[in-house]
Amino acid sequence: MRSAPVAAERLAARYDAVRRATERIAEPLSAEDCAAQSMPDASPIRWHLAHTSWFFETFVLARADAGYRRFDTRFDFLFNSYYNAIGERVARPMRGKMTRPDLGEVLEYRAHVDRAVARLLEREAPPALELGLNHEQQHQELMLTDLKHLLALNPLRPCYRERASTATVPAAPLRFLRFEGGLHAIGHDGTGFAFDNEGPRHQVFTQPFELAARPVTNGEFLEFVEAGGYQDPQWWLSDGWDWVVAESIRAPEYWSREERGRKVFTLAGELDLAPSEPVAHVGFYEADAFARWAGARLPREDEWERAAAGLPVEGHFAESGELHPRPTIDRDASAPAALFGDVWEWTASPYVAYPGFRPASGALGEYNGKFMSNRMVLRGGSCASPGSHLRATYRNFFVPTARWQFSGFRLARDA
Amino acid sequence: MRSAPVAAERLAARYDAVRRATERIAEPLSAEDCAAQSMPDASPIRWHLAHTSWFFETFVLARADAGYRRFDTRFDFLFNSYYNAIGERVARPMRGKMTRPDLGEVLEYRAHVDRAVARLLEREAPPALELGLNHEQQHQELMLTDLKHLLALNPLRPCYRERASTATVPAAPLRFLRFEGGLHAIGHDGTGFAFDNEGPRHQVFTQPFELAARPVTNGEFLEFVEAGGYQDPQWWLSDGWDWVVAESIRAPEYWSREERGRKVFTLAGELDLAPSEPVAHVGFYEADAFARWAGARLPREDEWERAAAGLPVEGHFAESGELHPRPTIDRDASAPAALFGDVWEWTASPYVAYPGFRPASGALGEYNGKFMSNRMVLRGGSCASPGSHLRATYRNFFVPTARWQFSGFRLARDA
Amino acid sequence: MRSAPVAAERLAARYDAVRRATERIAEPLSAEDCAAQSMPDASPIRWHLAHTSWFFETFVLARADAGYRRFDTRFDFLFNSYYNAIGERVARPMRGKMTRPDLGEVLEYRAHVDRAVARLLEREAPPALELGLNHEQQHQELMLTDLKHLLALNPLRPCYRERASTATVPAAPLRFLRFEGGLHAIGHDGTGFAFDNEGPRHQVFTQPFELAARPVTNGEFLEFVEAGGYQDPQWWLSDGWDWVVAESIRAPEYWSREERGRKVFTLAGELDLAPSEPVAHVGFYEADAFARWAGARLPREDEWERAAAGLPVEGHFAESGELHPRPTIDRDASAPAALFGDVWEWTASPYVAYPGFRPASGALGEYNGKFMSNRMVLRGGSCASPGSHLRATYRNFFVPTARWQFSGFRLARDA
Amino acid sequence: MRSAPVAAERLAARYDAVRRATERIAEPLSAEDCAAQSMPDASPIRWHLAHTSWFFETFVLARADAGYRRFDTRFDFLFNSYYNAIGERVARPMRGKMTRPDLGEVLEYRAHVDRAVARLLEREAPPALELGLNHEQQHQELMLTDLKHLLALNPLRPCYRERASTATVPAAPLRFLRFEGGLHAIGHDGTGFAFDNEGPRHQVFTQPFELAARPVTNGEFLEFVEAGGYQDPQWWLSDGWDWVVAESIRAPEYWSREERGRKVFTLAGELDLAPSEPVAHVGFYEADAFARWAGARLPREDEWERAAAGLPVEGHFAESGELHPRPTIDRDASAPAALFGDVWEWTASPYVAYPGFRPASGALGEYNGKFMSNRMVLRGGSCASPGSHLRATYRNFFVPTARWQFSGFRLARDA
Repeated sequence: MRSAPVAAERLAARYDAVRRATERIAEPLSAEDCAAQSMPDASPIRWHLAHTSWFFETFVLARADAGYRRFDTRFDFLFNSYYNAIGERVARPMRGKMTRPDLGEVLEYRAHVDRAVARLLEREAPPALELGLNHEQQHQELMLTDLKHLLALNPLRPCYRERASTATVPAAPLRFLRFEGGLHAIGHDGTGFAFDNEGPRHQVFTQPFELAARPVTNGEFLEFVEAGGYQDPQWWLSDGWDWVVAESIRAPEYWSREERGRKVFTLAGELDLAPSEPVAHVGFYEADAFARWAGARLPREDEWERAAAGLPVEGHFAESGELHPRPTIDRDASAPAALFGDVWEWTASPYVAYPGFRPASGALGEYNGKFMSNRMVLRGGSCASPGSHLRATYRNFFVPTARWQFSGFRLARDA
Repeated sequence: MRSAPVAAERLAARYDAVRRATERIAEPLSAEDCAAQSMPDASPIRWHLAHTSWFFETFVLARADAGYRRFDTRFDFLFNSYYNAIGERVARPMRGKMTRPDLGEVLEYRAHVDRAVARLLEREAPPALELGLNHEQQHQELMLTDLKHLLALNPLRPCYRERASTATVPAAPLRFLRFEGGLHAIGHDGTGFAFDNEGPRHQVFTQPFELAARPVTNGEFLEFVEAGGYQDPQWWLSDGWDWVVAESIRAPEYWSREERGRKVFTLAGELDLAPSEPVAHVGFYEADAFARWAGARLPREDEWERAAAGLPVEGHFAESGELHPRPTIDRDASAPAALFGDVWEWTASPYVAYPGFRPASGALGEYNGKFMSNRMVLRGGSCASPGSHLRATYRNFFVPTARWQFSGFRLARDA
Repeated sequence: MRSAPVAAERLAARYDAVRRATERIAEPLSAEDCAAQSMPDASPIRWHLAHTSWFFETFVLARADAGYRRFDTRFDFLFNSYYNAIGERVARPMRGKMTRPDLGEVLEYRAHVDRAVARLLEREAPPALELGLNHEQQHQELMLTDLKHLLALNPLRPCYRERASTATVPAAPLRFLRFEGGLHAIGHDGTGFAFDNEGPRHQVFTQPFELAARPVTNGEFLEFVEAGGYQDPQWWLSDGWDWVVAESIRAPEYWSREERGRKVFTLAGELDLAPSEPVAHVGFYEADAFARWAGARLPREDEWERAAAGLPVEGHFAESGELHPRPTIDRDASAPAALFGDVWEWTASPYVAYPGFRPASGALGEYNGKFMSNRMVLRGGSCASPGSHLRATYRNFFVPTARWQFSGFRLARDA
Repeated sequence: MRSAPVAAERLAARYDAVRRATERIAEPLSAEDCAAQSMPDASPIRWHLAHTSWFFETFVLARADAGYRRFDTRFDFLFNSYYNAIGERVARPMRGKMTRPDLGEVLEYRAHVDRAVARLLEREAPPALELGLNHEQQHQELMLTDLKHLLALNPLRPCYRERASTATVPAAPLRFLRFEGGLHAIGHDGTGFAFDNEGPRHQVFTQPFELAARPVTNGEFLEFVEAGGYQDPQWWLSDGWDWVVAESIRAPEYWSREERGRKVFTLAGELDLAPSEPVAHVGFYEADAFARWAGARLPREDEWERAAAGLPVEGHFAESGELHPRPTIDRDASAPAALFGDVWEWTASPYVAYPGFRPASGALGEYNGKFMSNRMVLRGGSCASPGSHLRATYRNFFVPTARWQFSGFRLARDA
């Protein structure tokens, strides 16, 4: 990652804004809501609150501030996520079983770190601070998706935040935009912050292709479901089919079938499935199977980035507070709509290093590079991503079966 | 179970005493401590608080009080433990993932049930009330052992309740008492409350035997550990050996080995292992292996009951607040010491029905009878059992690998 | 086990008869049929052929004959079943993956051992020989049941041995015989061979009881199946219900449902289910659930033995070559029919040591004693047991879910 | 796949040559060796013999020859590998439990198919025949690697084929060759047979790079092992590290450590590890970790193909009968040595579709396309590959943990 020169006062304000945004996510929740872990891939809200502070403590304060006194030295063991170079840690599936420190103590820990960072920022702009803020924004999104996964388990069908009823908008008709082939450059050019995995910028040769102007909708995906798509192996990659059979997958995560029709669990509780909204919470295998069934394919990440290059990072992000994708409004005939926000978009690209990739040195080198196998790239951010966190070159990545993010997709085809 | 005629006022007082005792266990704990589930066999404290209330609601109020209004009808699904006849329920390993209702709501639920029971007791003494109280006392013990298991996972080594330092008493020398063989009766005679599995009282023919005057101590068990007892298959039942190998079992639960010697995790935090205390938190396989190594055996449950018959139910129970076994004081040459309290004692007897056993009808018939396979009988109660809950005929039962109860044992041998 | 004085010539003839009977079981089989292992609980036929020879080599020849030269010293590792005192061995589930030595070499191994035993018997009657022969007879039965389990997996539905069509006999009406309570002795009295777990003979006090005159039939069990017995938890022990749900158990092993009605896989291939035959291949949980549904219970092992005491060991055994249970003919109003042969009968008794039990010393002490947990006792032998191998005091034992033996049951009830 | 015009007589000769080569692999083996399955990923030799015949029956004879009579219609169920479009089949891990048809019958099945193909080739050159032959050649390699995995389990350490002792040649010093960047084309151009996944040929833009002139040797890999490479997470991808820990991986498959030094199991039995031979039987994670430790990386598949383009397909293949990699002789300063044969070479490229890829229609479309997730590409063939089967464009693929193939790697680095 490369840290741009930013004035310390602006950094302090940004630090404060990001930290407060994290805490606002936890505000409506009980200690219990903040304590539980729904599955090994997810973490308790309280753990996120603490881990993001540990990150600043470990990679900023302990390195930049010789006089810094750690809040509790045992927190390395409790709140290290996966940095082998830092040492041993609580096994991931055990995070929900750590009942101490409690929520009050974790909030004190946050305040302790915040005071130390504020003092530090009076003197200097430490190199890893910007990374720490981007890291915390990633965890803001995870807090929302982990919380959704947790609440969905509860038969009381809890509501986290009431949703202003969106007047139902019909989905724009599906159209494709054509892109010419040839050599073009992808990857981050080094201006402003980016994660290490976004570079180096490099040339790729692309065939001509077409990209859908909007993501696939619930209504379109429902057709696949009702046409027996989940029961027919011809649409599926072999590993995907094994997964569908082993886990009895029949629909996107959070969809259910009740007497009165299809329902979907949201952060506003259980609602009727809205056909015009982008489909969310599908895994890569489902996106890929749908695309094959529809006679199309998923875009490669360089195709996606080429289409997004030069477009403003605008869309429907976490800041709206809706925390649910909106139907796509497709106004501009010349550009794809909703590339940013609403739903992360699965691509056909395995997550691997760009040519010439060099991970950061030390423990921070574990941030991205070590996950470069068995994961697929997603692009564009979601309705749970902070908008200021996204870029056209941003590479998110998950295993193909992951469904608890707001993950959808758009179609592509060979031109 | 048979409910003796008890005056309603006395019942109301007893009801109140038992319910308050349950809540006192939770009092020092945070919402987080009450929310987590350490393993599928254990439950969250908050679940225990709710489930014991659900028991009164379901088996007392809903049956005796036509006008009773349930606190929340959805709680059947949330707080039914294992009664198939009542219907579907949250899968046991998921209890720690239910973050709603929170602790405050559960305490309101308790108060709601308490008010209704109080009103009911003004009119009548409902048949299942005594069962409900005994059921709640069982859960008081489970709350303490589940809590211990949970806190032990935390690297902060939390202390639940400070323990008054017991002056270290040396263990009494091990001696055996002889009992003659012949026909004698075991099982509950129907006077006062008993669980269905304690009857019918019936005759058994016993060979002469000898029974140790006190339970095996930590010091004695440590000899077995240090003699390589956990590495030598000759002492173990085949299933026990498979378990030792598969789980890498090397010592009783909660024992650890640090630089400065053997430690043991207790509800007062981590302490030095005290050789004179009865060994606790061993499974049946370990008790059985130790006995074979020591040239002895475990007593059968009829032998244990014969030795306990007629003795007062006195000992070291939960009421002391110590929540840890005390060294046995062996004062009476004519009777075994510490049969009641300190540690549950594994017997050599599989848990099966007594001849003529009839489970209660309806859902309550699931209370005991359906567990009559693959479990071994333990007798006598522990330092976490309410003393008023125990009897010489009381049959506790666990699978042979269970170690999270205060379970120890005493030796026997053929005479 | 106690070995009676037997003249060496008679021993040699008996040795020869038992060894040849083993080989006759393998005769109609291909090398492939002899090589495969259908599940960890079962073993390849070739392994049985070798292991029974290893038993004589290890416990007879190596101990009695100083000049004996082992066929191949590496066979200890390959053909030791579970004797920890003998040393390391091939893990049980791997037996089917050992392709060397092949069938021809194993038969040479048998001949090598037979020659050495023959020489030895000219000089003496070694103590463990009788045990070796009984051991081999146990393996004869396992060869048949392991083979049945293996062939049942094959969609070609192979036939091992054609079965002379038994004229269908209706099942005798179900009647119960009454036995008075009181003190009586069970266990082997030391006359002739017995396994160590059959003794010591000792007194038990029994309540009066009634025992069914014949085993439960397929027709009766089918009523339970069709009444939804496998779908209703009220009939099942808790562990049994968990097993039924987890494994989707719906009928006895080897039953299938086809268009033209119920079928059952047998060693003669797939046949129509015959209602009058004793039900076979049920586990303890199924037997127990049926009994509860039928308003009865399983007999305890002392009840069974009391009923069998003094009766001749007659019935339908492996010697008939039919290898399938026959309908019970109930001719004698004063005694239960078919106690011996046809199907092993599950009892309500966990397999534990008799009072005063002492296992044999050394490795042979592992023969029976170490399995005394989590298993239930079966009595009487089956259509796959050699008749000469059985006794009224004989205690077979399996875990409650085991179904690949010819295991059935008869009902009992309190008198 | 595209079938080139080949005269029928030449096809018949080629058919015969391939089929006989398959049978020669099985010739030295017993029925037992041909029957067992060492793990779910491997198959019994007898299954390979049958499945390759089923392939011709299903995709050639049943489609081209209206009068063809199947040998046994039930073989579809037994010998279909993974073609969902053909129907249900024996679950993969069960292949070793199918003891019928036996080896003799399977050889008759082969002869039956061969006669029908011979008759057919008198009339026409059916389209899928060439695919069937390439398919059978793939299975020839799998027979050898599956056999090696099976024999390695046996404590008798069997020898499949004696190996002429190779005079030990020192490994050539490691040198790198530079390749310029730019646009170039990869993929098969349609001349002669190729699998569908090798096309379409298309342009890619490559950065300049360097490629090692030979594969990594045992001696080099041993340095990594002895430097603690398997104990240090910094070298490993996260999923690779999890695998190393969970499976206790410490060295390449088939390596063992004995008193007298490192040994390696081969198809000639257990031999001393030869430092100058290419390392084989490593997974992708190990190759990738070694490369990182060595300050290099694995080549991408387009880099590998660029280096191999235009080189003759020469090297050490299965035809030599040695079935073990030879030390690389690096004679030609201008080209990498041993690109073909000896060991398959892991690349850094996930196995995905080339731009414009279209799988074959019908069941044959399942041949390659459905495996395009979670697998990495290997290039070049091994000492167990038939030489006539290989091409520079050939894409082999396995999951990153697969080690039972002769899989090694060579290093690359950015220029």
